Amino acid sequence: MRADARRNADRIVATAAEVVARDGADASLEDIARRAGVGSATLHRHFPSRAALLEAVFHERVEGVCWRARELTGAPDPYAALVAWLREFGAYVTSTRGLAASLLPGPHHSDACVAMLAEAGDGLLTRAVQAGTVRRDISVTDLLTLVNGVAVATGHGGPGETDRLLTLALEGIAP
Amino acid sequence: MRADARRNADRIVATAAEVVARDGADASLEDIARRAGVGSATLHRHFPSRAALLEAVFHERVEGVCWRARELTGAPDPYAALVAWLREFGAYVTSTRGLAASLLPGPHHSDACVAMLAEAGDGLLTRAVQAGTVRRDISVTDLLTLVNGVAVATGHGGPGETDRLLTLALEGIAP
Repeated sequence: MRADARRNADRIVATAAEVVARDGADASLEDIARRAGVGSATLHRHFPSRAALLEAVFHERVEGVCWRARELTGAPDPYAALVAWLREFGAYVTSTRGLAASLLPGPHHSDACVAMLAEAGDGLLTRAVQAGTVRRDISVTDLLTLVNGVAVATGHGGPGETDRLLTLALEGIAP
Repeated sequence: MRADARRNADRIVATAAEVVARDGADASLEDIARRAGVGSATLHRHFPSRAALLEAVFHERVEGVCWRARELTGAPDPYAALVAWLREFGAYVTSTRGLAASLLPGPHHSDACVAMLAEAGDGLLTRAVQAGTVRRDISVTDLLTLVNGVAVATGHGGPGETDRLLTLALEGIAP
């Protein structure tokens, strides 16, 4: 791909990520093209279907969340770093709303994303367990499932509500 | 309604609850009629649409969960009673699978069910808080949302998986 074509594709994906976060998976493709400063024909040349564009958005967002995990692995407090990352993952799930569900017919892609997230989060979990601040009998997949469930169940209440219920789930109901 | 017609309707709803728990909201109506020992015409006379039958199933199941809350209010350990009830609610959510989602176009009915459940569970939560075993800053709606999210996120893993993740969410991730 030529450099300017690559820049167009990157800008389309970045713009689509914003618009999808606001409008959900059935966001207007015309709106995305216009905001990215390209014509509809250019958008369709790079992404022949809505699913192809959504997959690119999904993948870029997941890579961003994984990158944050690696960044947080250097933080001084392993428990705080794990919780911060799980909150960011929760915010990501909330912001992509129907995106994941709309891609479910292609489970292969979704499995690959879960594997990427699990690998990225495993280092954070291991550090927190080794520091004695998190129980040993849970996996990073347990945590991703828990956060995903809380985010989906609280999504219509906004990010503050997701954060509040996620804190409750991580701390437990005991006083 | 005559006594035998009432018995038919009750049997259809009870049978539909079992079949829907196994096959989901798009279960075969012919199968339900056959297992209930009535003809398809009788089923359709009582429940003119799939939505009407699903609402009756939903309502009966929710009433059962509410009845269990009142029963558990007399249990000696308020914390154990609350947790037992939340597990039963989680099992209910899992077993109805697509049922709730299939009724979402009629939010009024769903809101009424949530209000029934919240009222039923409030007594259990209040007792557990008064016993000093549950924090004061949460509502029964928080707990229902949490359990619902966990059940939806773990549904494909079976009831054992839902129970395990629910226990994690109620106990928290600290050792």
